[in-house]
Amino acid sequence: MIESIKKRKTIRKYLQKEIPDALLNDMLTTSFRASTVGNMQVYSVIVTRDVEMKAKLSPAHYNQPMINNAPVILTFCADFQRFSQWCTERKATPAYDNFQSFMNAAIDALLVAQTFCTVAEEKGLGICYLGTTTYNPQMIIDTLKLPKLVFPVTTITLGYPDEQPEQVDRLPFEAIIHKEYYHNYTSADINKWYAYKESLAENKRFTEESQKETLAQVFTDIRYTKKDNEFTSQSLLQALRRQGFLD
Amino acid sequence: MIESIKKRKTIRKYLQKEIPDALLNDMLTTSFRASTVGNMQVYSVIVTRDVEMKAKLSPAHYNQPMINNAPVILTFCADFQRFSQWCTERKATPAYDNFQSFMNAAIDALLVAQTFCTVAEEKGLGICYLGTTTYNPQMIIDTLKLPKLVFPVTTITLGYPDEQPEQVDRLPFEAIIHKEYYHNYTSADINKWYAYKESLAENKRFTEESQKETLAQVFTDIRYTKKDNEFTSQSLLQALRRQGFLD
Repeated sequence: MIESIKKRKTIRKYLQKEIPDALLNDMLTTSFRASTVGNMQVYSVIVTRDVEMKAKLSPAHYNQPMINNAPVILTFCADFQRFSQWCTERKATPAYDNFQSFMNAAIDALLVAQTFCTVAEEKGLGICYLGTTTYNPQMIIDTLKLPKLVFPVTTITLGYPDEQPEQVDRLPFEAIIHKEYYHNYTSADINKWYAYKESLAENKRFTEESQKETLAQVFTDIRYTKKDNEFTSQSLLQALRRQGFLD
Repeated sequence: MIESIKKRKTIRKYLQKEIPDALLNDMLTTSFRASTVGNMQVYSVIVTRDVEMKAKLSPAHYNQPMINNAPVILTFCADFQRFSQWCTERKATPAYDNFQSFMNAAIDALLVAQTFCTVAEEKGLGICYLGTTTYNPQMIIDTLKLPKLVFPVTTITLGYPDEQPEQVDRLPFEAIIHKEYYHNYTSADINKWYAYKESLAENKRFTEESQKETLAQVFTDIRYTKKDNEFTSQSLLQALRRQGFLD
């Protein structure tokens, strides 16, 4: 499995081949062994197989083609609703309508999601994370009928690979690691850690096609812009408030 | 590896045996293959081995004994500082001082943390997640000298196991899974899904020792209380604001 992690790649194109329920359920059950805060398991997973449901989810994910192409979509949700209902039914008064509880539940959901992905890839399946989940949470909440104290944190598309992309680059190990204290980066550090990424033909072509001077400008001006970040931050906070996780 | 995940247990007691740098670095490098938003790798990992640094971190984690007992502590941080600095050095104007960017970076950090744990457990090491990381983030920020746009999301303690605890219970598969839509839980559902947990001798003893009528009351009145949740929610939001991730 360690070899499978070392060689892993995100897969965005899938064969039109069903994933048997027994296999999917076994992988999900395994993923539920992930660590969970106080063994509360404050997460839920919504399984989407229905073609019409995929079409309804698609706009929330900016119509990325993986949504309609993948046999299975999994939406991993922070969920304090089930646990709170248990409390209420047991003469206990739950108070999980707050931001800390959201973080606890979001962490739970993400540890399960990543464990699931590791298992699925070991089984020969391919996955793609959809970061768009937190960009348009309200659309997903409405489509999947998520009640209060349930919040979509991440989504993966899942299927048998129909492509074999090259493995993408990663920053050098030393760029990520800090011993004892956070070390601030000098200009020389930044030059060193980003040199390989900037040297890649693909990134040079991308910068040129985008008519930008630097690769960083592709990120700030096109892919993750101030306008989008600020707009989706407000949507995210508003949806958290509506779901009961922020005062 | 799938078997290792199925059998996994959280380990809180460790042998006084060092973890070689080569092994730790290899496991971390593997974990950096986890999916990352836009391949930006907006996370950092702080490695704590120093005894004095562990003692300084300990109060932030309510002096849980794992901190001083474990040979290695890893603090996984959302980090948009390095990426933003790269942008600034490349004539690009970063705008990642917002909540959406925090979520993107927190998700990145958590996928890496969980991949690391899977790898470490496969290698025979034991881990324990410290959910306290988001309860006292400012103490951790100060101790590890985290600059703006860097935020501690989770911490794990790591070492060779010096205990073999029983594997803890999990809710039934059907309690977690929703097909196409979120299904609301009936009283009968709640009774069914929580019956096994409530039947465990350990949980019955725990409820009795806590002088509570139900297990749920142990959670709401002692372990995850309204007062603590609301207090730490405010600390968390305040620290996010100070680190530049909230207006």
